[in-house]
Amino acid sequence: MNKFWNPLLNELEPYAPGEQPQDKKYIKLNTNENPYPPSPRAIAAIQQATNERLRFYPDPECLELRKAIAKYHKILPEQVFVGNGSDEVLAFAYLSFFNPEKTILFPDITYSFYPVYANLFRNKYKLIALNDDFTLPVEKFLQENGGIIFPNPNAPTGIFLPLKNIEGIVKHNSNSIVILDEAYIAFGGESADKLIDKYSNLLVIRTLSKSHSLAGLRGGYAIGDTGLIEGLNRVKNSINSYTLDRLALAGATEAILDREYLEKTTAKIISTREKVTLSLIKLDFMVLPSKANFLFITHPSLPANEIYQLLREKGILVRYFNKPRINNFLRVTIGSDQEMDNFLHTINEMVNIHP
Amino acid sequence: MNKFWNPLLNELEPYAPGEQPQDKKYIKLNTNENPYPPSPRAIAAIQQATNERLRFYPDPECLELRKAIAKYHKILPEQVFVGNGSDEVLAFAYLSFFNPEKTILFPDITYSFYPVYANLFRNKYKLIALNDDFTLPVEKFLQENGGIIFPNPNAPTGIFLPLKNIEGIVKHNSNSIVILDEAYIAFGGESADKLIDKYSNLLVIRTLSKSHSLAGLRGGYAIGDTGLIEGLNRVKNSINSYTLDRLALAGATEAILDREYLEKTTAKIISTREKVTLSLIKLDFMVLPSKANFLFITHPSLPANEIYQLLREKGILVRYFNKPRINNFLRVTIGSDQEMDNFLHTINEMVNIHP
Repeated sequence: MNKFWNPLLNELEPYAPGEQPQDKKYIKLNTNENPYPPSPRAIAAIQQATNERLRFYPDPECLELRKAIAKYHKILPEQVFVGNGSDEVLAFAYLSFFNPEKTILFPDITYSFYPVYANLFRNKYKLIALNDDFTLPVEKFLQENGGIIFPNPNAPTGIFLPLKNIEGIVKHNSNSIVILDEAYIAFGGESADKLIDKYSNLLVIRTLSKSHSLAGLRGGYAIGDTGLIEGLNRVKNSINSYTLDRLALAGATEAILDREYLEKTTAKIISTREKVTLSLIKLDFMVLPSKANFLFITHPSLPANEIYQLLREKGILVRYFNKPRINNFLRVTIGSDQEMDNFLHTINEMVNIHP
Repeated sequence: MNKFWNPLLNELEPYAPGEQPQDKKYIKLNTNENPYPPSPRAIAAIQQATNERLRFYPDPECLELRKAIAKYHKILPEQVFVGNGSDEVLAFAYLSFFNPEKTILFPDITYSFYPVYANLFRNKYKLIALNDDFTLPVEKFLQENGGIIFPNPNAPTGIFLPLKNIEGIVKHNSNSIVILDEAYIAFGGESADKLIDKYSNLLVIRTLSKSHSLAGLRGGYAIGDTGLIEGLNRVKNSINSYTLDRLALAGATEAILDREYLEKTTAKIISTREKVTLSLIKLDFMVLPSKANFLFITHPSLPANEIYQLLREKGILVRYFNKPRINNFLRVTIGSDQEMDNFLHTINEMVNIHP
């Protein structure tokens, strides 16, 4: 509280990101970072761009990056918007498409940034309760609304909604926008990118943070109808003409173009995820079916917050959300095989000590 | 226009940045970039940060950078907010401190992004006409208001308002915020940084784009009372937890710490500016007194838009604003001595051909 604040600020509850300890002593399984390094092509491109031309502004149109993304999705550069991580793209999408006069819909258990944006931009919203098994109740997204947003796979559950259900929601809501947050789609789900030519009300948002091991570089994008992309550009150009610096543009472009590396690293993560799932089930955990680079787990006798604390003491960070319905769950990022062995070893000890 | 747009978008007139041709054929005197390369220490720090740790999120608190800035200004890190260029910091400041119910004040001739933010965030604003000599009419900023914003030196005039006048405005408006945009302060003006401990309603905003030759890296910051900084953090953390990537954080920190390099390069620019001013006066130009890294000039017989076009044909870009009161002026960035000789040579020919 401060007398110079816009009164709106007193009502905000900002997003709290997962811990980012600045030393190296933790095994970080808490913020869904990728255990593998970025594409060597991305690193080389950044090295090449680290020169005296940093004194010039970057390309405000981000054309080379948009071309690379367009090529990847087999669409046009005019169907691509890029931003400083998908969080920024999401914020711009709220401003661009959600009319504060109308009520938007999103799940009760989902990315916890959604209500934060809504509070900042004064959007009314209605929470749609997930089913008891944490799947998305498709029929509840067919009611009247001023816009819809949800992730696929959902976070923090990791549950993927099949494309035919996504299409059903988009098709039914032909008069309102559907924003699909595909932050975790590279880990086994099927992208709705193939629907954007068919539906002018569908905006798909992606990030390079997880799939491309570039959380530290900040690259996100949206793909959709050119009219939607134009809307996003109007907002971006009313806030900051240059949201991506020269190094991020160079690195992100090469990372996107290096499709082979993406496929190799995501395949490894998927394989590790499946192995860890089986091991956790053997230790009596319930593991939600995940198509993401994390698992959402609960144990019948060990309380989640205790596991969280014990892991932390052992130098392993996972994410615990003290929220209704999920306060006995942990979200565990899939790290390297070695990190996960370490995690499983520690979990195994806990289960044996507190059976 | 698109049926899925928030109706607000139809009213926006986004900011149009100066041309950023992506080839190298122009002498760019149009976007106030620095002619000298960034500090070698900044380049080295970026090179060192270009490694596999890019897979981790950056420090959301940006602590090392804030410490460097605090050291530079002899303040506390808690008095520093950093963002993705000063444009983003300005946008966050509008959201944080300008209550849409009240009317803010800024000059009629100033940074053209100010009305853009106001339109996006639905702020009412009143334009304060600069005096005929383009100086700031201090007394008009003493009227009732819901916030004040202006640059010092002003853009695109380059005219610096002495610190005693700044203090007068800040002191008089003890119930409303005064945002001072010091994008160009390094080129000979005196910073108001020494006033922030005394006045809790003063926010000073800076950028590394011009003074530190880092337009391509995107670094800006605000300094002020801890209450103001907390407000900015609430807004930032409701939009994007990580607005500065790992490379920008590393490069910006070292650039700020390399004070000696800053002083050397800005001294060269100031010296070039003074020489160019004299040469232009000899060619009958009127040159506004500048404490920035650009000159705002007009000629009694050569129309500005014609000079702009002729220079462009000769491969030299300057900035022309087709706006009331200044549509016979050009804004010319101070480049290297060689670039300015080239510019003066071309201008000289024009004056001789069209006397």
